[in-house]
Amino acid sequence: MPNSFGKLFRITTWGESHGPSVGVVIDGCPPRLPLDESEIQTDLDRRRPGQSDITTPRKEADRVEFLSGLFEGRTTGQPLAMLVRNSDARPEAYAEMKSAFRPSHADFTYQTKFGIRDHRGGGRSSARETIGRVAAGAVARKILSRAGNVEVRAFVTHIHHIAAPSPDHFPTLAEVDANAVRCPHAPTAEKMIETIKQARAAGDSVGGIIECRVRGVPAGLGEPVFDRLEADLGKAMLSLPATKGFEIGSGFTGTLLKGSQHNDAFVAREGVVHTATNKSGGVQGGISNGQEIVFRVAFKPTATIMQNQSTVDVHGQPAELHARGRHDPCVVPRAVVIVEAMAALVLVDHWMRHTAQNHTFKF
Amino acid sequence: MPNSFGKLFRITTWGESHGPSVGVVIDGCPPRLPLDESEIQTDLDRRRPGQSDITTPRKEADRVEFLSGLFEGRTTGQPLAMLVRNSDARPEAYAEMKSAFRPSHADFTYQTKFGIRDHRGGGRSSARETIGRVAAGAVARKILSRAGNVEVRAFVTHIHHIAAPSPDHFPTLAEVDANAVRCPHAPTAEKMIETIKQARAAGDSVGGIIECRVRGVPAGLGEPVFDRLEADLGKAMLSLPATKGFEIGSGFTGTLLKGSQHNDAFVAREGVVHTATNKSGGVQGGISNGQEIVFRVAFKPTATIMQNQSTVDVHGQPAELHARGRHDPCVVPRAVVIVEAMAALVLVDHWMRHTAQNHTFKF
Amino acid sequence: MPNSFGKLFRITTWGESHGPSVGVVIDGCPPRLPLDESEIQTDLDRRRPGQSDITTPRKEADRVEFLSGLFEGRTTGQPLAMLVRNSDARPEAYAEMKSAFRPSHADFTYQTKFGIRDHRGGGRSSARETIGRVAAGAVARKILSRAGNVEVRAFVTHIHHIAAPSPDHFPTLAEVDANAVRCPHAPTAEKMIETIKQARAAGDSVGGIIECRVRGVPAGLGEPVFDRLEADLGKAMLSLPATKGFEIGSGFTGTLLKGSQHNDAFVAREGVVHTATNKSGGVQGGISNGQEIVFRVAFKPTATIMQNQSTVDVHGQPAELHARGRHDPCVVPRAVVIVEAMAALVLVDHWMRHTAQNHTFKF
Amino acid sequence: MPNSFGKLFRITTWGESHGPSVGVVIDGCPPRLPLDESEIQTDLDRRRPGQSDITTPRKEADRVEFLSGLFEGRTTGQPLAMLVRNSDARPEAYAEMKSAFRPSHADFTYQTKFGIRDHRGGGRSSARETIGRVAAGAVARKILSRAGNVEVRAFVTHIHHIAAPSPDHFPTLAEVDANAVRCPHAPTAEKMIETIKQARAAGDSVGGIIECRVRGVPAGLGEPVFDRLEADLGKAMLSLPATKGFEIGSGFTGTLLKGSQHNDAFVAREGVVHTATNKSGGVQGGISNGQEIVFRVAFKPTATIMQNQSTVDVHGQPAELHARGRHDPCVVPRAVVIVEAMAALVLVDHWMRHTAQNHTFKF
Repeated sequence: MPNSFGKLFRITTWGESHGPSVGVVIDGCPPRLPLDESEIQTDLDRRRPGQSDITTPRKEADRVEFLSGLFEGRTTGQPLAMLVRNSDARPEAYAEMKSAFRPSHADFTYQTKFGIRDHRGGGRSSARETIGRVAAGAVARKILSRAGNVEVRAFVTHIHHIAAPSPDHFPTLAEVDANAVRCPHAPTAEKMIETIKQARAAGDSVGGIIECRVRGVPAGLGEPVFDRLEADLGKAMLSLPATKGFEIGSGFTGTLLKGSQHNDAFVAREGVVHTATNKSGGVQGGISNGQEIVFRVAFKPTATIMQNQSTVDVHGQPAELHARGRHDPCVVPRAVVIVEAMAALVLVDHWMRHTAQNHTFKF
Repeated sequence: MPNSFGKLFRITTWGESHGPSVGVVIDGCPPRLPLDESEIQTDLDRRRPGQSDITTPRKEADRVEFLSGLFEGRTTGQPLAMLVRNSDARPEAYAEMKSAFRPSHADFTYQTKFGIRDHRGGGRSSARETIGRVAAGAVARKILSRAGNVEVRAFVTHIHHIAAPSPDHFPTLAEVDANAVRCPHAPTAEKMIETIKQARAAGDSVGGIIECRVRGVPAGLGEPVFDRLEADLGKAMLSLPATKGFEIGSGFTGTLLKGSQHNDAFVAREGVVHTATNKSGGVQGGISNGQEIVFRVAFKPTATIMQNQSTVDVHGQPAELHARGRHDPCVVPRAVVIVEAMAALVLVDHWMRHTAQNHTFKF
Repeated sequence: MPNSFGKLFRITTWGESHGPSVGVVIDGCPPRLPLDESEIQTDLDRRRPGQSDITTPRKEADRVEFLSGLFEGRTTGQPLAMLVRNSDARPEAYAEMKSAFRPSHADFTYQTKFGIRDHRGGGRSSARETIGRVAAGAVARKILSRAGNVEVRAFVTHIHHIAAPSPDHFPTLAEVDANAVRCPHAPTAEKMIETIKQARAAGDSVGGIIECRVRGVPAGLGEPVFDRLEADLGKAMLSLPATKGFEIGSGFTGTLLKGSQHNDAFVAREGVVHTATNKSGGVQGGISNGQEIVFRVAFKPTATIMQNQSTVDVHGQPAELHARGRHDPCVVPRAVVIVEAMAALVLVDHWMRHTAQNHTFKF
Repeated sequence: MPNSFGKLFRITTWGESHGPSVGVVIDGCPPRLPLDESEIQTDLDRRRPGQSDITTPRKEADRVEFLSGLFEGRTTGQPLAMLVRNSDARPEAYAEMKSAFRPSHADFTYQTKFGIRDHRGGGRSSARETIGRVAAGAVARKILSRAGNVEVRAFVTHIHHIAAPSPDHFPTLAEVDANAVRCPHAPTAEKMIETIKQARAAGDSVGGIIECRVRGVPAGLGEPVFDRLEADLGKAMLSLPATKGFEIGSGFTGTLLKGSQHNDAFVAREGVVHTATNKSGGVQGGISNGQEIVFRVAFKPTATIMQNQSTVDVHGQPAELHARGRHDPCVVPRAVVIVEAMAALVLVDHWMRHTAQNHTFKF
């Protein structure tokens, strides 16, 4: 079950970076949703390598194939399985990793935990694992879009020391995808791209911060007390490779405010309850309050760098590692669509849970 | 299941602030653990109200009673249920909350989600709900302590604008509990206490940050890919009332480093693999690496303040709210033991999961 | 989690036969259901010992107390915890069981599995554990009754060699409870009672079969492929102490028919699809088809008998056991309400699951 | 999650009879198990159609392909996904089923539940769905075999009115597979085959009973109180298409015995506790006692028969159905390997659960 996520809209992913394939099966997909492969492909294309000159040059078409669960162009409520074949695998490029552990990567911990590891490109710990998440997330996003005009939009706000101003409106997809780094503030995006290129040129890497906003979510999603919406969003984001932090609404900065400054006053507008401010980030008491959901995720600099590093080998002896292989000098731009996918998965799952408890029976 | 946490060491909590009781049942507790009520009481006493002049004056002895699962002073492997009766309930003090929604509290969202709510002191959304967590956490901590000398230590690092220096050693329990605010740096603790008192005097509230460190955890705990140790720790912490953020190791600040600065080089010391630094916070690839686990949790200022606030009533009409009741001007000092409890629950659960997959069968 | 049952309407039970209490917490209870303790008590009274001269003479009032989850007489959607104190515990009556394993009871297996056991009256393996199930089942039955006029009715069809004719109508509660053995066919009930009395007089015990029928269940409950309705009903029943078999519809006897005899032809009656016969027992492809659900459960003769038996002691040495304590010479009459409880729990849970997947989103 | 089975060794299956493929992913597979595709294929070949003249003539090679989770011939502890392509799909042969519901099949209930159904050959409700179970079961059986010489052996005891004598020894695989009907008693097998052929010739179908025995299971597997070993075995078996009943040990017949006849006396043999008889079927108090596990499963006659049947069409109007397509006149012989697979899955899962709770920590 560690490779499954969600309670009612439940995905299970499989696959390694240089094994035969990666894929996902969705169990609990609502029936009758019109769906075709091109809708999945759109999101996979936003995630795939080689899409710009600041990402890994690995060449993968990442073509998705439906294995089950569709009939005459609609979901049937049965498991929806999707497969992507790995094509540009070059396992020989990872020979060094067979014998030495890359610092701050999963090599050592996988070996210690399982007593065996697929060292080729990180195996299961590779970001290629997220393909299944993005494919399932595309289904979730279509559900949200059809069911309630819910829009999920992530974008980059920080790369290393470069920070973009907070957008004054809900960014459009076009604005986000207008540049390779997926920062909707064009002048800052330029600087970010430059920063990433410099890091790559130095054989180094950088990290950054992604913000995600969701609008159109009805009040009532999220469950007391352990499955709060922010808890499940946090878990979803912290399950992504390279993440080190998550905050919602005011986040860590909110600790600098007093209660009288932090509280979001309720106001009634056209008969609907809103809040005057949104320090809560759209969630109160673990349950969505109908305002925009706003959260941020911190990604560390890529662990695999093109510099000599001190490490130990599989026998515990000191070793020098010079990584080869093809890697992103910064994972943040490609992670935008993955953040969106995970957010959508959480929301669909909680929507179904909310209905089950509160709308199955009428009292 | 939203009131349950954990897969194999699974707790389910119940109870409201002003209902008859709060409690917890642990399903999956390992058998033969010596246990008596005083060990639970010790942690409950660290959490209970009225323990100092910077916490709520509500008077609750919070006496725990074992309902099942013990035989001759040892756990039997059967469900371990524990009960705490509410005694100092004064539901009449919450009359205002019946008709008006407190800003940034759970009143509005519970009402919207469930169509009914126990408004007395926040009902289920009250921090009293955490009593069950702390009781179960005390069992988990004893297990960790007996099984591997694992120590879980949380402490306060920030209250509003007051920041303590990072401890240069693993703080002792005595150092943490030496003052009412639970900051092991005594001079800073003084300022923090003063800040809280000022906020209370102004009818206001403040928030802060708790850091938690765990030492003695063996390498190998945590599961790829969704149930990474940091993902489950993050979920655990973000399921606590008033939390807005979580970070592990380098956290948000880590985004300001380059990969060459951020990576934790492996070194061999006396035949054991360590890391020279600990930017990873003890977790790599979602799995513990044997180093100290270090994470931080952000708590917002208490939503219930003793000032007039604009809000709406249950009919959606503008209203003015002046809260009464007894509240903490800052939840952070009492939350220290709750953070420790949740961390211990996550670790015991993952330890059992690790054994199941990796040590049930020998190949 | 082994002490939990259900996915969305999830119960967790606790307690031992001679410990302080037994109880249950329901997580996921729909909100706004009117409920008071007397409704739970009615079912507990049908289960409790000492209700007739063919049951154990143990004296227990089995008074239920709500611990949480109610507000002004309605459920709140929060955990609903219920407690029953043990009062007539006489642990000294079970001294023999401390050192010797009762044949066909759980003594040996609990000791082997957990390395410790509460031997007093069977501890957790006692039928007293089912009190929590019956209490939760009473809530489930009220939900079913309010939501769709669903009625769950179990009754005894066989005691040892005495078999009752199959009822030609859906038996009323009054018909079932008209006699101590809960067989709605009065003349047969007399013989059954006589059989039980003879067994008790001989220090022996007998078993039997319970049939359960449910009417009013809408078509559509049950999930392909593992969580078929009959699979979950079967698990529910086989989780009851002393059960050895489960069959639905035609059951084992159905293997003697040919397909042309066994198939239930569909017919349309007043615009609604029915079946002309009901060999399927109300479930086809794992999903309810709107017909009456009919299943049967086999209960073995009580393991604890008042005769000398050969066994081994806790050191593996041959021993002679003469049990004392107070036991039912036949568990079947009291099990009727437990079977009903478990059936109701399965149905509520599946109803919620059905809604979640199929009615949360409209496509 | 309805398409998932198991808690720690968890499988999720996908696929329809005439869709692109069927498959399975195992989450939680122990690492380091040597495994190759031929070991899976052996069991798939025992299940596949066309293997004898009493099974469906559909031609399917049922070649399994590993999609992930293996490295250098060993499992890695990561998800193990396996795929089988459908090749001999003839959806046009099922045109009648598009408009009319087959009696006692899943057509009506799927349509009612999901509002859509893949009618081609039963879609997801087809027995082809069990391919994923058998593939995963082959892995589970290898684990059991390597870990503890546990052997799982199912065989046919009844076909329609033909009953075989109970075997006086643990049947060998060769004895079971010696004939097309998989009954180890050769003379009876002849009659069974004849019965099936007659049914087929008449366009009719027959059912039967499979017995399964497992030897080598250590005492201690199974969990009080809901996840008893017989409850999980029962659920596993009742989740198979066409099953109507399950019994363990003495089963329904055990209700005809008195306690003094039914109890299994404990005896010590060479320092190990055994039972003199095995009415319990190897499970006491829901936990294995070290004796042979013995249970039986009832399968109804195949619903799809080659005779005219009265039914209704999708508009609720009376209709006459004459099924075409290729079907087994009796599913029982091919179900033998499926029963074994499900039993193995339950045992591996419970073994892992047992270790987790009882052997992770030492007290």
